[in-house]
Amino acid sequence: MADPSTCPPLVPSSIVAAHAKIKSYIHHTPVLTSRSLDAIASAPDPRAFLTDSPPTFEDAEASRSAGGNAETTPRFRLWFKCENLQKIGAFKARGAFHAVTRLVEEMGIEEVRKRGVVTHSSGNHAQALALAAYTFKIPSYIVMPSISTPSKIAGTRLYTPNVIFSGSTSQEREAVVENVVADKGAILVPPYDHPDIILGQGTVGLELEKQVDELQQRATVVSSSTSNKAAGLDAVITPLGGGGLLSGVATYFSDKPGTLVFGAEPSFQGGDDGRRGLEQGKRIEHVKTLTIADGLRTPVGVTNWGVLSDRRKLEGVYAVTEDEIKMAMRLVFERLKVVVEPSGCVGLAVVLFNKDFRAMCAQRQMGLEKDGWDVGVVFSGGNTTMKAIAKLFGEDGGGNVEEKQAEEGERHAGKVGRDGESKVEDVAG
Amino acid sequence: MADPSTCPPLVPSSIVAAHAKIKSYIHHTPVLTSRSLDAIASAPDPRAFLTDSPPTFEDAEASRSAGGNAETTPRFRLWFKCENLQKIGAFKARGAFHAVTRLVEEMGIEEVRKRGVVTHSSGNHAQALALAAYTFKIPSYIVMPSISTPSKIAGTRLYTPNVIFSGSTSQEREAVVENVVADKGAILVPPYDHPDIILGQGTVGLELEKQVDELQQRATVVSSSTSNKAAGLDAVITPLGGGGLLSGVATYFSDKPGTLVFGAEPSFQGGDDGRRGLEQGKRIEHVKTLTIADGLRTPVGVTNWGVLSDRRKLEGVYAVTEDEIKMAMRLVFERLKVVVEPSGCVGLAVVLFNKDFRAMCAQRQMGLEKDGWDVGVVFSGGNTTMKAIAKLFGEDGGGNVEEKQAEEGERHAGKVGRDGESKVEDVAG
Repeated sequence: MADPSTCPPLVPSSIVAAHAKIKSYIHHTPVLTSRSLDAIASAPDPRAFLTDSPPTFEDAEASRSAGGNAETTPRFRLWFKCENLQKIGAFKARGAFHAVTRLVEEMGIEEVRKRGVVTHSSGNHAQALALAAYTFKIPSYIVMPSISTPSKIAGTRLYTPNVIFSGSTSQEREAVVENVVADKGAILVPPYDHPDIILGQGTVGLELEKQVDELQQRATVVSSSTSNKAAGLDAVITPLGGGGLLSGVATYFSDKPGTLVFGAEPSFQGGDDGRRGLEQGKRIEHVKTLTIADGLRTPVGVTNWGVLSDRRKLEGVYAVTEDEIKMAMRLVFERLKVVVEPSGCVGLAVVLFNKDFRAMCAQRQMGLEKDGWDVGVVFSGGNTTMKAIAKLFGEDGGGNVEEKQAEEGERHAGKVGRDGESKVEDVAG
Repeated sequence: MADPSTCPPLVPSSIVAAHAKIKSYIHHTPVLTSRSLDAIASAPDPRAFLTDSPPTFEDAEASRSAGGNAETTPRFRLWFKCENLQKIGAFKARGAFHAVTRLVEEMGIEEVRKRGVVTHSSGNHAQALALAAYTFKIPSYIVMPSISTPSKIAGTRLYTPNVIFSGSTSQEREAVVENVVADKGAILVPPYDHPDIILGQGTVGLELEKQVDELQQRATVVSSSTSNKAAGLDAVITPLGGGGLLSGVATYFSDKPGTLVFGAEPSFQGGDDGRRGLEQGKRIEHVKTLTIADGLRTPVGVTNWGVLSDRRKLEGVYAVTEDEIKMAMRLVFERLKVVVEPSGCVGLAVVLFNKDFRAMCAQRQMGLEKDGWDVGVVFSGGNTTMKAIAKLFGEDGGGNVEEKQAEEGERHAGKVGRDGESKVEDVAG
């Protein structure tokens, strides 16, 4: 990886520069809107819309005022940035392309091609790095635990023949990486804890801001009747795992005080390490959770924490339960018609179901000139399978998710023993 | 509905005019591309990619030539027009908005508001008309069989309080519609068999053509290495049910002989009435199938047949099995990360799995200057539920779909008796 000391500073202009470097290699993912999801998010009780006889929008609107709960019911216009439609199905392509183009700049393409790049991951970062390297004809070596799911191995093999299996403990995986580094001189590209990765992921914020501007202008031209002349984004919320995405987006908006940046985490088994860390004033270094939001099982990285613990950059982090994530996922699927993995739905889940977040928004929206907030919601990825969906939402998937996950955790712990923790971490790549 | 004799002619310029009328009310849906789906479609055996150990792209490429099957293996670059992301989750919003704006032009808004609009449908047309009417503050009356699924009733109720239940036979439903017409003077808006509807749906073709042009130009600027300079669309394929979408798209491309238009149908229980009708030289008037592609259970309409039986407008229709539809749906879900209902996946299923279609494409691609074809694939809608997906792809959903559907058909026929046929037709709305 490029020496962090030679990296561009973590400021908005570096993200503009990163975007110029990577934009021809990545998808310019669409921003979707949905009047029905806006209405659901602006209703006193969004859960009512998940029943078989949901209220009409007019009912919901009437109950806002009738219940006298305007003070606790926020109003939202939501702008969904679809990184599930990004190459390899997740925003990770941005960071990987940025890291690789930076390496090429610093070392020259010959040198990078000679040495190759390496990472260990069983998740989206593995595929992202393999794709970025493949694009530049750079060899990539991806170390994956041999117990990884076949579909993830297959996805990575599409771009590199060099999938190298390891045991599932941190030590085992790192030993294999060290071998590759020693053997080939390959350069390690970490999944989130590096400035080049953070700047790459921050381009999500840059595109989102521009797209919402354009869409709002088009809407203003079309609609002459609305009194809700929107201007820009009042807030953006993204999932928080290792913190690459959130710290990048928070960096991008750091000179735009009108746009507050929030993080979203799963609360299950302490998966909300970012939120707890901010509360305690220090980074939490170890997390052990089997949340269905498997991309968010990792603790926040060191460089990432540096950004996220800065109150001028990040406004706050909120957590949601497993069932809330599932409900959000179902709404995304049935209303927006896109496939977002559980990790990618936590931002919307916070907007819809987190009482503290909603009360805070409602409070801040009182007395505003515009009616409610325009909120950017980042869908971070869509890498799931029909099989996983069928299991999660099938006949036996209707019960309490947290209980089942806990049981799975016990079985898992029993099998993996002392190494449960490091195994969990590796999923986040 | 506007008197067909006053309607614009079924020619491309009428579709340009229709688009100008409706474009501010509909979503400009994205066109998605996927390098991996292109590679899968261009491989000798796309089914191999649905196994747990799929070949790499390089393997697939090698087997194209090694097998000596370049003559039978076509090459595709696919452009997916995502009408599943359209308002109400299907292209039907286009026809409904066009029909309503045309009514307003012809009769004046006061008159249309006084009388209201009416239709009978338990499907996407019901929601589409309710939304279009709601937008113009026109009352709408939607007649739905009382056995319709709760989610579809709920979806329609979001836009109109006037959901009126009927029995499920054609006669029962039409009697209720006639009552509404007599009582309120409401104007009937049919789901597909009308020029205004066809012209509205044809705007899918117009947008697709422009978007592909733009995307191809961007790609040409970015990539200097490719020898596959693409220009325009060589073909477009859409699902065929009642024929509103396909006849609209075929009309739009009728003055562009470089772009061939194809239809796709389910073969299950004779669901390929369009294909069979073309073979026999006459429209098939009755269809009775319980294909999972429930939006395509209807026979082709009369006006629609007028367009589709014209060989200068439609090149051909191909059919696929239930399992092929399911496989396509899984690839769309897992690779493109969008939710497309079974009916919406039949076009891609033809491209991937129909041997006759693929052999015909490979033949026509021989000796072309460009390498393979650029094909527009229309995803017509995304209205399905997590529950339905979980059922279709869950533990017990892995078996032979056609057998199960046939069983269901028998049960269904047993329950509904003589009326099985008309009940089936109504699903297509």
